Amino acid sequence: MRTQVVIVGAGPAGLLLSHLLGLDGIDSVLLERQTAEYVQARIRAGILEAGTVELLRDVGLGARLDVEGMEHRGIHLQSPGERHHVDFTDLIGRSVTVYGQTEVTKDLMAAREKAGRPAYYSASDVTLHDVTGQPSVTFVDADGTARRIDADVVVGCDGFHGPSRASVPQPQVWERAYPFAWLGVLADVAPSTDELIYAWHPDGFAMHSMRSPRVSRFYLQVAPDEDIARWSDDRIWTALSDRLGVPGWTLETGPITEKSVLPMRSFVTTPMRHGNLYLAGDAAHIMPPTGAKGLNLAVADVALLARALTASFRGDDRLADAYSETALRRVWRCTHFSWWMTSMLHRHGDDFDAQLQLAQLHRTVTSAAAKTELAENYAGLPL
Amino acid sequence: MRTQVVIVGAGPAGLLLSHLLGLDGIDSVLLERQTAEYVQARIRAGILEAGTVELLRDVGLGARLDVEGMEHRGIHLQSPGERHHVDFTDLIGRSVTVYGQTEVTKDLMAAREKAGRPAYYSASDVTLHDVTGQPSVTFVDADGTARRIDADVVVGCDGFHGPSRASVPQPQVWERAYPFAWLGVLADVAPSTDELIYAWHPDGFAMHSMRSPRVSRFYLQVAPDEDIARWSDDRIWTALSDRLGVPGWTLETGPITEKSVLPMRSFVTTPMRHGNLYLAGDAAHIMPPTGAKGLNLAVADVALLARALTASFRGDDRLADAYSETALRRVWRCTHFSWWMTSMLHRHGDDFDAQLQLAQLHRTVTSAAAKTELAENYAGLPL
Repeated sequence: MRTQVVIVGAGPAGLLLSHLLGLDGIDSVLLERQTAEYVQARIRAGILEAGTVELLRDVGLGARLDVEGMEHRGIHLQSPGERHHVDFTDLIGRSVTVYGQTEVTKDLMAAREKAGRPAYYSASDVTLHDVTGQPSVTFVDADGTARRIDADVVVGCDGFHGPSRASVPQPQVWERAYPFAWLGVLADVAPSTDELIYAWHPDGFAMHSMRSPRVSRFYLQVAPDEDIARWSDDRIWTALSDRLGVPGWTLETGPITEKSVLPMRSFVTTPMRHGNLYLAGDAAHIMPPTGAKGLNLAVADVALLARALTASFRGDDRLADAYSETALRRVWRCTHFSWWMTSMLHRHGDDFDAQLQLAQLHRTVTSAAAKTELAENYAGLPL
Repeated sequence: MRTQVVIVGAGPAGLLLSHLLGLDGIDSVLLERQTAEYVQARIRAGILEAGTVELLRDVGLGARLDVEGMEHRGIHLQSPGERHHVDFTDLIGRSVTVYGQTEVTKDLMAAREKAGRPAYYSASDVTLHDVTGQPSVTFVDADGTARRIDADVVVGCDGFHGPSRASVPQPQVWERAYPFAWLGVLADVAPSTDELIYAWHPDGFAMHSMRSPRVSRFYLQVAPDEDIARWSDDRIWTALSDRLGVPGWTLETGPITEKSVLPMRSFVTTPMRHGNLYLAGDAAHIMPPTGAKGLNLAVADVALLARALTASFRGDDRLADAYSETALRRVWRCTHFSWWMTSMLHRHGDDFDAQLQLAQLHRTVTSAAAKTELAENYAGLPL
């Protein structure tokens, strides 16, 4: 079998790349280690940048997003007893949209099926060959048949653990483990807030997010090795009420339907291109979830890469040759922003660090320049 | 002897407070452990915020400053090979002025002598008594005579090592030692730059400052326990040329007249008031020198305190009662800014930290919001 682009990994990054290439008349084949059901159910990010929303609309993926997505003008930033709204729309004319990664994936899968673009799910033993020459990918399909696809280009959208990243020899790697994790909670209760709340608290960070008008999402800072069995529903609601509490406000509670501990780290590998192999999304970089950059950065990589590959297939290699360097400028911006927001909001270090955090938080909610800096980074730099 | 305000410490903070109180008809006496010559020759900060310059002009201390001070529109921020000018005047309509602390002190001493306000230099065994009741200060004067001054108020402008800070019982203290120091160099050579250069470099931070059109000031990041004997003049010029170098630019060299290692730390003690004792300047807080906040913050404390004490002597205690809380808002803003600028520019931590620094530096020279945030903090928030 032969195609122009083999895309390893059919999460939102791979699916979107396949969609964008398809619009430009470039053939691609998707390979995914998991089942379609698993990929679709995987709960991840829920905040789309303004540029991500614009792109999805522009490429015909905005119909359900426009109905079900919840547009937020900004976020609430909180220190003990004080909740401040930072209004991105007032500051920079851009907003963010709450629309789960599962929903984006669902829309992308529907588009893929409608267009009839090929995808192999439950593909095992995925192996990349000769990526600096005439690339091919071998794998065993869901029926146990060994297959091989020859292609001009292989794109790794297969995350941190996929085989693509490992096919770049001698990468330069940067990594930061944070001394805390998130306890993520999903609850069947209407959100007690109109927009997301990010709260600094002496007991640790807390966040009130949402999935829909009836489903709330919460996060609590916990230790990286936290035993989830120690967090009863009662303890979770008490901690959320304490950390998110401000005078005159009540947190509504409801049945908790899911809880899990999410690790926090930053990771960047370079280069993002090796011969005819390109990396995009989590295969090249991991962000801590604070600031909601992971999915949006994957979308930015893929938007850039689709333009670069299309130009390259049409004979102009300049964008493709610059892909790694161009993509990494945004990667480092987002890595810094995610680190900054994570560092400002989570308890770590000593009492001096706590005062630095509160000074930064106070500045961020009172200074137009500091608010604008947050707004531009959070709502997302132009794609 | 009796006065309204005893000011312990006759550095720029104490001298300015005495001057401001004098303009409002409040009597004060200055006590200083060192000789006048020592205080006057002490080389410290050299950058005045816009608000500091305005205040000095407003209170009749601007004559020589207006002639000899060098107004700078902004600063140069540098990463390897790239020098960027951040123009505060364009961004926020404010500038900074290069005018050494020694010059400010000289002007303040002249004003004190002209006004005939009393000062005791070489005062030893300075001891504060009954600061929560009817305060007095005892000391031994330069002639060896034991003296006592009774006062309504005692103000500690006597720095970190003075007796005033130690007279506040059970203070809350925040402190941060940085894992590096500055090697400071004074050289008889015209500056090779129009405005200050702050340079990030893999070998460590370097800075090109100036004292006058004929005297340059340089700083190099070194280890906190650096042996100054290891730094020959040749080694200093080579390191400065390497770290400050950009294509097409040459560092002029000349005779080095002074070199010393300056420690870097942050320190804040609270409260800044205890009964009738008030702390101002270095007695209450130490900043690392990056960002030039130390002297300017002392001036801000003293400007606030002069208003508070004048109102209090006229029967309104509100400003005085709020002094510690009001002053600390600016103290924490400046502490955070100094920490931020120090952390962005000095090599420390691992390669991930270096990339965060370069990402922040790149953002700071390219984004209007980030530039404005730097400009407002560096040129100084309104007094």
